[in-house]
Amino acid sequence: MKQSALSEIIKIVGQKNTITATADKESYITEWRGRWRGHCDLVVTPRSTRQVSKILSVCHHAGIAVTPQSGNTGLVGGSVPFGGIVLSMEKMSKIINTDPINFTLTSEAGAKLKNIQIAANKADRLFPLSLASEGSCQIGGNLATNAGGVHVLKYGNARDLVLGLEVVLPNGTIWEGLRGLRKDNSGYDLKQIFLGSEGTLGVITRCVLKIFPKPREIVTAFAAISSPYKIIELYTKIGELAGESLSVFEFMNEVSVSMSASQLKTRYPFSQPFPYFVLLELTATNFDTQLRQMLETILSDAMLNGTILDAVLASSNQQRDEFWRIRDTIPEAQVLEGASIKNDISVPLSKVPDFLSKADYATTKIAPGIRHVSFGHIGDGNIHYNLSQPIKSDANIFIGQRDELINVVNEIVNDLGGSFSAEHGIGTLKIEELNLYRSKEEVNLMKLLKNTLDPKGIMNPGKMF
Amino acid sequence: MKQSALSEIIKIVGQKNTITATADKESYITEWRGRWRGHCDLVVTPRSTRQVSKILSVCHHAGIAVTPQSGNTGLVGGSVPFGGIVLSMEKMSKIINTDPINFTLTSEAGAKLKNIQIAANKADRLFPLSLASEGSCQIGGNLATNAGGVHVLKYGNARDLVLGLEVVLPNGTIWEGLRGLRKDNSGYDLKQIFLGSEGTLGVITRCVLKIFPKPREIVTAFAAISSPYKIIELYTKIGELAGESLSVFEFMNEVSVSMSASQLKTRYPFSQPFPYFVLLELTATNFDTQLRQMLETILSDAMLNGTILDAVLASSNQQRDEFWRIRDTIPEAQVLEGASIKNDISVPLSKVPDFLSKADYATTKIAPGIRHVSFGHIGDGNIHYNLSQPIKSDANIFIGQRDELINVVNEIVNDLGGSFSAEHGIGTLKIEELNLYRSKEEVNLMKLLKNTLDPKGIMNPGKMF
Repeated sequence: MKQSALSEIIKIVGQKNTITATADKESYITEWRGRWRGHCDLVVTPRSTRQVSKILSVCHHAGIAVTPQSGNTGLVGGSVPFGGIVLSMEKMSKIINTDPINFTLTSEAGAKLKNIQIAANKADRLFPLSLASEGSCQIGGNLATNAGGVHVLKYGNARDLVLGLEVVLPNGTIWEGLRGLRKDNSGYDLKQIFLGSEGTLGVITRCVLKIFPKPREIVTAFAAISSPYKIIELYTKIGELAGESLSVFEFMNEVSVSMSASQLKTRYPFSQPFPYFVLLELTATNFDTQLRQMLETILSDAMLNGTILDAVLASSNQQRDEFWRIRDTIPEAQVLEGASIKNDISVPLSKVPDFLSKADYATTKIAPGIRHVSFGHIGDGNIHYNLSQPIKSDANIFIGQRDELINVVNEIVNDLGGSFSAEHGIGTLKIEELNLYRSKEEVNLMKLLKNTLDPKGIMNPGKMF
Repeated sequence: MKQSALSEIIKIVGQKNTITATADKESYITEWRGRWRGHCDLVVTPRSTRQVSKILSVCHHAGIAVTPQSGNTGLVGGSVPFGGIVLSMEKMSKIINTDPINFTLTSEAGAKLKNIQIAANKADRLFPLSLASEGSCQIGGNLATNAGGVHVLKYGNARDLVLGLEVVLPNGTIWEGLRGLRKDNSGYDLKQIFLGSEGTLGVITRCVLKIFPKPREIVTAFAAISSPYKIIELYTKIGELAGESLSVFEFMNEVSVSMSASQLKTRYPFSQPFPYFVLLELTATNFDTQLRQMLETILSDAMLNGTILDAVLASSNQQRDEFWRIRDTIPEAQVLEGASIKNDISVPLSKVPDFLSKADYATTKIAPGIRHVSFGHIGDGNIHYNLSQPIKSDANIFIGQRDELINVVNEIVNDLGGSFSAEHGIGTLKIEELNLYRSKEEVNLMKLLKNTLDPKGIMNPGKMF
């Protein structure tokens, strides 16, 4: 039965859209950092929604597992197959239409995020989703995982950038909800079910995305701050004064910045060290705005009031790039500093100082000398609270403390009403946490949805639950 | 069984939170305009989530219909009971907490929208949802119907203003998802299922809302325009130049404005008549912005280019109020002009001119002399395409043409990829349209959700399906 079903699938897409050789399957079954390695019988690369529908219908009837795969760039093992077939969307990569008047772009799910950004740009519009992996990740994966990134503050998460979806349900039914409407209360908003569901409820095949007027002016600053309380004070102040202009508010602690400076020779913008830093950007569509002057005033007032210790405004694109390079190279620098443990957490903004002091204290108690590499999208309450092994310590001992360290951080997050997974999702990595930190009622409701839409449990098995 | 269940419900909330007398029940069973009148055995006004849970548990077991009711201000008969009990949220009206640092407000579902706006304002923040019924509607109802209003352009629909929910499921299970996080990918985003579900999937009991920095500057203008094409041209231009500042972009045709002027003595801002008008507002949190000058420049350029025919900037709050009064009094003026037929539709912005010309033509063909009172949130593609009887015609003949007129409008909307219900929802009014204009697959998926969460069909029966 299973073999004949696989043959049927090959017939649906044709041999040239099928990968069976072990060597060729390798990149589809391995997580990009090599952290997980799965297995599958077959990789298929359908070319149309109709083909996806037929494939799922066959799999549904034969009980064959389907792992939908986009760029395979996730961080929680969500696209690693555990048997069955990998359904790669890479050949459904067409950008169907850009409508600058409706401020929408319609695309197949396999289009690379970068290509969508470029297409929007060609129409004098902005598609604001922006991530480290944008050159290889695909929009379908971004939507299925509700990706975040650096512009959430102004434009929202991936979920907020979608107006319409086409989805193939686990039994092969095609739901075509490709509407490009800002307001549509014609029944349940079904697309919401699939956004962020990590491929466990169906396959997103096409989407209608929001695109935005392009910013004409960007002002970037790097500020030095004495404490997390002051960071939040600055955020509140800038929020109140620059509201709709604020598009980036990223924080880094001293360890993060000095790791980046020493390992990757990034240019430290001050003549003395400071405990915390914020990289912030205001953007405006209007080139006449007094954005630069506004930010100068806000920051000099903040210095006078003691909210910040120092600040530099980027005076050129080159200096802006230098600021961003500090922020962007932190993960890379951390790898060069030895063993590391990563957390992707969020807490209410008002709890950020509490979180940082409690987490720094608790992790130091477990591993004296531990280095806190904390940075991230603090304007969203989202902190990449990473930990590096103590200098000159044994990496294996540190890695052995992994579970203990992650648990103590998650406990603090949970006590503060936060989330153990702010933007990375559940995948295979955080299933235990989902059961630990979300109520039985909540997990049961998720399972109820899963069992209803995918009664045979064929969609991305081993993920989420 | 049913009688004993009702007694049990009375015991749960106590006699003083129960309404049984026919006269007292009247306002709960009647739609506010008197268009629908239902019936029920009992009205209960629970005081806690626990009570709501116990009530639903009893109803679930006994198969008693439950109509959740907020302010009863909807326009599609969604809160009219057809038997069973009315669960009024009016006594769960507490605003629990305002956190200006996290930019969140936590409230019980029965709080009046107006009171939430006031509480946010006290904390120097803005809750931007704003509707004609804000003095009497309740936030739970706003969320259950995904309310729209005049600020969707800048702040989104009600759905976009929610971070967390507490919901009692149809079987009485409480799901507590009251997190105040901007980023949270810890499993399926369950709140999305209940937002906009019109009380058919559960009862929203508490919510965490986003609040925003308060605008310090508002600039308002009234522009005269020759055609729908030019309206969209203006919108595109202003979007590109004023992007994040644009918070209102409402249009009105000549008939709308002159009805308002003649019936309600509103002050017409120009010395000659024009075919179309736009009421637009830019807002900014920063009081230093050159908003007024920016809008002046945009509008004078638009006049030079022929995009608009004339424009007036409000020079005082009084003049701003006068502009808004024109827009706000159109529905009232229309009532005074005789029989009317209402449509709440949306189309992609790029299709607005097409829609207006086709709909004006088709409806005139059916009812020569018909008056098109079209106005609304055109920046969202949402038009209240209302129709008034021809002057001196027989109102009954016109009302007799209601179905034909609504159908022809909906057909045009559907052909243009639009929605027959942009912000009002389905309720009892638009069930037929839902089945007509949404695919079988889509309606089936909605029904699947409904049957899964509410297998006994007790929640708001007769609505949506």
